[in-house]
Amino acid sequence: MSWEVLKGEKGDAERFIELLKGDPVFAFAIGNTKTAEVPGITVAGANPELIKFTPPADAELLHYGHCKIIPFPPATPDGKPTPALITYTALRTTGVPFFVVDSGLMTKPNIPYFDIAAPVGENIAEKPAMKIEEAKEAFERAKKLGEMLSRISDVLIIGESIPAGTTTAGAVLKAFGIKAAVSSSMPDNPVKIKEEVISKAVERVEGIDSSDPLDVVAAVGDPVMVGVAGMAIGSTKPVLLAGGTQMAAIAQIIRKLDEDTDIAIATTTYVAGDETADMVGISPDVPVIAADPMLGNSSKLGLRAYAEGFVKEGVGAGGATLLAYARGMSSKEFLKEVERSYYEVVESKM
Amino acid sequence: MSWEVLKGEKGDAERFIELLKGDPVFAFAIGNTKTAEVPGITVAGANPELIKFTPPADAELLHYGHCKIIPFPPATPDGKPTPALITYTALRTTGVPFFVVDSGLMTKPNIPYFDIAAPVGENIAEKPAMKIEEAKEAFERAKKLGEMLSRISDVLIIGESIPAGTTTAGAVLKAFGIKAAVSSSMPDNPVKIKEEVISKAVERVEGIDSSDPLDVVAAVGDPVMVGVAGMAIGSTKPVLLAGGTQMAAIAQIIRKLDEDTDIAIATTTYVAGDETADMVGISPDVPVIAADPMLGNSSKLGLRAYAEGFVKEGVGAGGATLLAYARGMSSKEFLKEVERSYYEVVESKM
Repeated sequence: MSWEVLKGEKGDAERFIELLKGDPVFAFAIGNTKTAEVPGITVAGANPELIKFTPPADAELLHYGHCKIIPFPPATPDGKPTPALITYTALRTTGVPFFVVDSGLMTKPNIPYFDIAAPVGENIAEKPAMKIEEAKEAFERAKKLGEMLSRISDVLIIGESIPAGTTTAGAVLKAFGIKAAVSSSMPDNPVKIKEEVISKAVERVEGIDSSDPLDVVAAVGDPVMVGVAGMAIGSTKPVLLAGGTQMAAIAQIIRKLDEDTDIAIATTTYVAGDETADMVGISPDVPVIAADPMLGNSSKLGLRAYAEGFVKEGVGAGGATLLAYARGMSSKEFLKEVERSYYEVVESKM
Repeated sequence: MSWEVLKGEKGDAERFIELLKGDPVFAFAIGNTKTAEVPGITVAGANPELIKFTPPADAELLHYGHCKIIPFPPATPDGKPTPALITYTALRTTGVPFFVVDSGLMTKPNIPYFDIAAPVGENIAEKPAMKIEEAKEAFERAKKLGEMLSRISDVLIIGESIPAGTTTAGAVLKAFGIKAAVSSSMPDNPVKIKEEVISKAVERVEGIDSSDPLDVVAAVGDPVMVGVAGMAIGSTKPVLLAGGTQMAAIAQIIRKLDEDTDIAIATTTYVAGDETADMVGISPDVPVIAADPMLGNSSKLGLRAYAEGFVKEGVGAGGATLLAYARGMSSKEFLKEVERSYYEVVESKM
């Protein structure tokens, strides 16, 4: 089986698979947090200077099959390619429409994108992530956008890209009192650095009244959480949150804001199998589905790295893989198409 | 009959009406040109200082039923309300999804909108409207957006709002060698002021090689033309240009760029009946449809003004009226709903 239900009723998960066969729309919320500037906290960029370009470059890759803001696709310092390759492949082969949402970017992509006036996130080790009013204003706009996107779809798939997003996710979960170990784009999860940042951040919220979860997000979260949660709550159709621990944290935010929003989470088997993370434990009581892109079977070293614990997830790669499978592609065919993308986007440019 | 075919085959026009019954999407391209700062050239704002807020305020009205950027809906200096009321009514009653596109705004609306990196237009009496590279970059992004929007629709309806847009339309038409008299939001069309501006602008293009119509648009047009033409050409589905003389000019641009784009124009009977304009003459060989919002039958003075030659068109009002009729609303019902919008948006706030 190329996907499995990690949490929730099998029937409920299958309902989402059925919806993916209809008219889904994929929204890709991207942003930045200065938390990513903490040395060693993320490898979502070939060097620290490039990290901030990763989200817009991923968005360009989805649109054009190549990047414009940087002359090469995002990669880790040792050359592991961006998970956008997987999402690009799924969108390219299924033809599902997708829209990019600026959910707090430092630099804008060279494509048409939705602006919801989300601020860039501050370094949560040092200060609140966002001004509360700014976070709430962006949340309202995202809700409106979610409502609009749900008018043109049966199911709204939402992916994200924000370097250091697993750290802000960990901080929000901790502030909610959920014991969380969060995943990472590195096999040796830099748990220590993350935990230090999370501790500093969460100390700050202990004084605040957290009855409004958006106050917590503004204090220790990031702007992508605001955009994704807003779109999900604004949607009048079911929402598939495509991502790992970050989406688990966002699912918690959504549940606290609105018990009735019809959500599920789709991630990759690489996050699901991560011992330093705990997707099932940190997710609220919603269906969690893990799709297996089978990259371990690839002839390409750069793709096999995913199966060895690198990168794991991002840009909605797990949900995008599930989308391709739901729409009738076999895992073998999909892997072949991912390899073709890898050749076109990465290898042929070397 | 509440709509009539002004130009083209009746069957071709009816094909568009049929498409409107399916899954249309309405895109609203808004921008500014400093040409609107020429004294007396436009009344698209209660006073000259407010003109620049008209496009974002119209966009907010469509989203919320009220404006945020200014505390009241856009109006002429003597209180004639914005045609956004008509479009708002059609979108509210049909539930058709709509998306706002920043096509060169001075100030941004408080809603989610698409950014295509279009520049604000310069005053064409004084200098080129846009840098050619900027216009072309925005055009490419608009194409991409049009392609995306056409994936989620059977027909793409595009409306616009840009104060002084009839003047830039006149300049582009003249530069193309099309003898044009253009419409206006005033019953006493300020033809003299417009013609002066147009003459100054067109003198400048006489030196340039106009084999690329985008060069002409960059020289004497405005950024909304770039956004609308880009979306139309990028669309893989038929496109209904909702507007008056501005859309006629844009249709000419589209035809010069690409003979195969499947376009039609829908406007109001108020523009169609304007003796100082010539919708049929200035439009290329595409179906032109005029819808009659029947505002002359209204009990509301502010709405009857439309039938007396004020405002006439804008925010895609003609196309929006046609949309409501195509989806089964009678002209009587529609007028009643427009009056209800007028009460809610304007009268009840006085």
